[in-house]
Amino acid sequence: MSLAEALVVFTPSGRRARFPHGTTVLDAARSLGVDLDAVCGGRGICGRCQIEVSEGEHAKHGITATASHLSPIGEVERRYAAERGLADGRRLGCAARIAGDLVVDVPPESQVYRQVVRKEAEERAIVLDPVVRLYYVEVEQPTLESPAADARRLREALAREWGLEGLELDLHVLAGLQAALRTGGFGVTVAVHDGTSVSAIWPGLHERVFGIAFDVGSTTVAGHLCDLTSGEVLASAGEMNPQIRFGEDLMSRVSYVMLNPGAQTELTRLVRGCLAKLTAQLAAAAAVAREDVLEATVVGNPIMHHLLLGLDPTELGSAPFALTVDEGLRLSAAALGLPVHPGARAYVLPCIAGHVGADTAGMILAEAPHLADEVTLLVDVGTNAEIVLGNRERLLAASSPTGPAFEGAQITYGQRAAPGAIERVRIDPETLEPRIRVVGCEAWSDEPGFAEARVTGICGSGIIEALAELHLAGVLGSDGTIDGRLAERTARVVPEGRTYAYVLHAAEPRILITQDDVRQIQLAKAALHAGCRLLLDRYGLERVERIRLAGAFGSQIDPVHALVLGLVPDCEPERVTAAGNAAGTGARIALLNGAARREIEEVVRTVEKVETAVEPRFQEHFVDALAIPHARDPYERLSQTVALPARRAGGQRRERARRAGAAAGRRRS
Amino acid sequence: MSLAEALVVFTPSGRRARFPHGTTVLDAARSLGVDLDAVCGGRGICGRCQIEVSEGEHAKHGITATASHLSPIGEVERRYAAERGLADGRRLGCAARIAGDLVVDVPPESQVYRQVVRKEAEERAIVLDPVVRLYYVEVEQPTLESPAADARRLREALAREWGLEGLELDLHVLAGLQAALRTGGFGVTVAVHDGTSVSAIWPGLHERVFGIAFDVGSTTVAGHLCDLTSGEVLASAGEMNPQIRFGEDLMSRVSYVMLNPGAQTELTRLVRGCLAKLTAQLAAAAAVAREDVLEATVVGNPIMHHLLLGLDPTELGSAPFALTVDEGLRLSAAALGLPVHPGARAYVLPCIAGHVGADTAGMILAEAPHLADEVTLLVDVGTNAEIVLGNRERLLAASSPTGPAFEGAQITYGQRAAPGAIERVRIDPETLEPRIRVVGCEAWSDEPGFAEARVTGICGSGIIEALAELHLAGVLGSDGTIDGRLAERTARVVPEGRTYAYVLHAAEPRILITQDDVRQIQLAKAALHAGCRLLLDRYGLERVERIRLAGAFGSQIDPVHALVLGLVPDCEPERVTAAGNAAGTGARIALLNGAARREIEEVVRTVEKVETAVEPRFQEHFVDALAIPHARDPYERLSQTVALPARRAGGQRRERARRAGAAAGRRRS
Repeated sequence: MSLAEALVVFTPSGRRARFPHGTTVLDAARSLGVDLDAVCGGRGICGRCQIEVSEGEHAKHGITATASHLSPIGEVERRYAAERGLADGRRLGCAARIAGDLVVDVPPESQVYRQVVRKEAEERAIVLDPVVRLYYVEVEQPTLESPAADARRLREALAREWGLEGLELDLHVLAGLQAALRTGGFGVTVAVHDGTSVSAIWPGLHERVFGIAFDVGSTTVAGHLCDLTSGEVLASAGEMNPQIRFGEDLMSRVSYVMLNPGAQTELTRLVRGCLAKLTAQLAAAAAVAREDVLEATVVGNPIMHHLLLGLDPTELGSAPFALTVDEGLRLSAAALGLPVHPGARAYVLPCIAGHVGADTAGMILAEAPHLADEVTLLVDVGTNAEIVLGNRERLLAASSPTGPAFEGAQITYGQRAAPGAIERVRIDPETLEPRIRVVGCEAWSDEPGFAEARVTGICGSGIIEALAELHLAGVLGSDGTIDGRLAERTARVVPEGRTYAYVLHAAEPRILITQDDVRQIQLAKAALHAGCRLLLDRYGLERVERIRLAGAFGSQIDPVHALVLGLVPDCEPERVTAAGNAAGTGARIALLNGAARREIEEVVRTVEKVETAVEPRFQEHFVDALAIPHARDPYERLSQTVALPARRAGGQRRERARRAGAAAGRRRS
Repeated sequence: MSLAEALVVFTPSGRRARFPHGTTVLDAARSLGVDLDAVCGGRGICGRCQIEVSEGEHAKHGITATASHLSPIGEVERRYAAERGLADGRRLGCAARIAGDLVVDVPPESQVYRQVVRKEAEERAIVLDPVVRLYYVEVEQPTLESPAADARRLREALAREWGLEGLELDLHVLAGLQAALRTGGFGVTVAVHDGTSVSAIWPGLHERVFGIAFDVGSTTVAGHLCDLTSGEVLASAGEMNPQIRFGEDLMSRVSYVMLNPGAQTELTRLVRGCLAKLTAQLAAAAAVAREDVLEATVVGNPIMHHLLLGLDPTELGSAPFALTVDEGLRLSAAALGLPVHPGARAYVLPCIAGHVGADTAGMILAEAPHLADEVTLLVDVGTNAEIVLGNRERLLAASSPTGPAFEGAQITYGQRAAPGAIERVRIDPETLEPRIRVVGCEAWSDEPGFAEARVTGICGSGIIEALAELHLAGVLGSDGTIDGRLAERTARVVPEGRTYAYVLHAAEPRILITQDDVRQIQLAKAALHAGCRLLLDRYGLERVERIRLAGAFGSQIDPVHALVLGLVPDCEPERVTAAGNAAGTGARIALLNGAARREIEEVVRTVEKVETAVEPRFQEHFVDALAIPHARDPYERLSQTVALPARRAGGQRRERARRAGAAAGRRRS
């Protein structure tokens, strides 16, 4: 009987071979290189190797499989089921033995390298392959005859049971080694980082470790706590960057550092404190021990990158904008002051250029233009806009100084996207009356429920929509002038000094869009457009196939309105989409997949940096792009691409424009 | 002219070749692999490449050499001589060019791998080859066209000028990088550790870095600050181990840790604080900045090793005495709390077994029995005696529980070897009158000048000499009994309870050697002798060719007296010598030579550990060794080997013994 063999097919991999009866499913899987997890090394403790057997005749595989072709449930599985539960039809691969032909299904949760489910439909999948892995081992006890050091016996066990050779042991692991061995009855779980060093140790079986992906922005710092064994995001949190008190924009902070000795240390302390605070919040929200956090990844713009690392950002404040360091950095999490496991590591994604930072690297990792045939334009708009253009052939990157107008700064009634900020605007081209929506309230201003909404100002996406709608309604000319002649027709257009303004909210607080506001947005959008245009020139393209708008602002603005206003170059409107927090997603990918780190390091080395400040054509493009839209006959061009009305076009065209706007409104509501 | 060639011979290496006229001496040396230093990369700044030219006809080399065969002194050398001085006849190898046949002498201070002069004549030479090396480079400045990160340009310069590829940069080096580059006009010196990572950076040329070798004993902690470029010891200092307040002997400290939660942290804090204090003292004494200390090495017994590293020593308190870790450890110096350069590294020598620590590894490194044909017995006596026996074929190691008697503890009038302690004793075999010498006074008690000496007690070496002399004078029997019958003959022998004592110092304070003191020393020396004997048995030897006595006690005791008393097995007396602080010397070797670290790691792996506690023969040897000397007819045997008198031998023999004793006295005075 023991010499009899059976055909075993594993799904979904399709790997197959004949095995002697009595072979465990785990051993069969391992011999075929089938991805079947087993932290405890096949001792029936961890339950990670659960499998299912497909019943019936498998024509595809040419075998008849049945659960009776597995050995009966024995002591190990009964004990596991009693202690931790085992779903119907599930078996432990380390205990169940082959007794006949089988089709063995490895469910996703039993795979080590499983795919992580992402909410965003369009992006690449994340394959789980974290740099830190857990291994349970049983270590030999020392005797007077064989009293080798504990570290040596641990290493021997790791080599014997897991084939892990030559591991370094962190000092704090040594410090906890003897207690762990003796508390765990010489059975311990270790965390191995990068396959080279033991970074943590626990007595007995330890099954879950966590990581945090940080996105360190100038204004907000966000963190996502992930389960490194499932890839799941367990908690997300954001905090205002406490450096804001030293300047809203990055250059103020750089100036502050230049003018105040010791200020850099203070700014570093503040941002590290913010990460520490977030860590505590995330751990509490996910009901996870901070000591079980073993990994962190960080993205951020170059100045935040430098300040977090304790590097002087002064050089980034003036030409030639030399970074101190651009490569990806592997550090101890303690070096960044993170209150997590002492053996935790941190990975800081690489920077690309003086104004194109690790946040852009994260965006590239998330959007993966380097893997696509199609040429994509990625835009992350903040105080600077980071712009990436290209495909698998070639990638270009630049930064464009848009200024803070898109974030609501330098706008008369501007504010951040906080509750009360006007974020959606529709203007009736006939009556010139607006409808608005504010952050924190689902209702439009002409719907029931809006009455309770508090209106406080207008945020970046609101101003973009307002200007695009004003333009579509004919209030705003292509040169950006508010048409004062309309003051006769509507009370919404009012004189304001020597120019005119549009009254977006007539009740208290009265909110106007002034001529100066329009100029600020014109300057910002011209900078953005010119940067994009420069990259297209450099790439030798007239038109881009696909645009992805990333970041908070990029996710809030409506792509159609962005096109109307000419923020980005022409593109099919349905190919202009929001990418969400791509930088943060990149940090999460780097957290969950070690190969992604090497991938982005490779990619950034090949990125061609375009320095807008020294490109003479940037100024030309900038001047060209001040108009709304930028082309000489913008309405005509837009009407071709976006199917929006030219200024004096008939009702039908106008109606199509309204529908486009309404559709955009629905998408965001 | 430029095509003409000249024969150049370098001494002391003897390497030779023909070079085109105009070649610099440094380039010629490099092309031949001649060891000629040049931290600044041949820029005429560092002056490390100084050479001399031998004048005259060199029959041996077959050339006529003259200083005029070098290019005349030019601008670079004139500037160097003006700024920093250049001795007559010295030239800078990087500036002086070959203009004819030459014999070029590379003086020791211009060699990188020079030999370090050691005071001790007998030991192996230390070849200077520290793990940290300095390199001066000139880094390209960033421009808008080529604004690569500073770290990248630094790496490029190191690869271009020194062939150093793929170096990692410590985070604190990154933090200081931009300031160093800009302060140094883009010329910086970096320290490279292990050829793999940049651990420090300074603007301009930085020429000296330092290291400290620590010997962490249970009672005292010693440190030696060395210049890593010359190997010279610039300062040495010692401090009492502050852990002493938790127990004089190690086992008391282990018990304290076992009984008091948190005590381990406190003990670790104390010993680290002691190392920090020593570091400050050493730096001050050598007038060296602490920030220029880049390396540290540590030896210590297993318990001190564990406590310094923050490892729980509990397991070392009872069988099977399992170490947490035995291999050599490479750490950051900061991990041990050393107040030195943040990039400094620390190397902790490997341990051998639960009772045979990194101090023994240091002793092996210093004494190098593994490189000799001759079989050597190394003994380091403290509370435990560490014993190593063997040669290049085979090494054995054991620890023997001698207890603290050799250190003056458990002796009625015993004390440490501090000023006032009797350390030398001679007893007239006719009159039984003693002569003594105390620590801190050069005069013997029968010489002028002794009157001022303060006598406070007797230290370990004093008690050994006293007992050996009492034995030689016939006061002490071979069973260790003080012969009470002599009380009739001399007032020096007095009754003390039911036994007798010998009055070593009759004036105040009266100092006696009691029967109980003799018993304590008998127990201690029997343990030591039995341990040695056990290793000889295991090796299959009857007699050892050479004995080295290491450590403070081993250096103080007179070898002849040690043999008389039977502390160590028989050996030719002139082959029993003091090794000084061999463990500390081992730490210094590991500090100055990276290869020595790998060497000792290899050696300790091959050492056969003998656990005295489980060897039945240890007890037999112990009982045998209680007698003074241990053999049945000790006087006869000793008379053959040490040429000392048997108990009732005539005046001639006695006179020879006196002469041997006096010779021993001279050696130590």
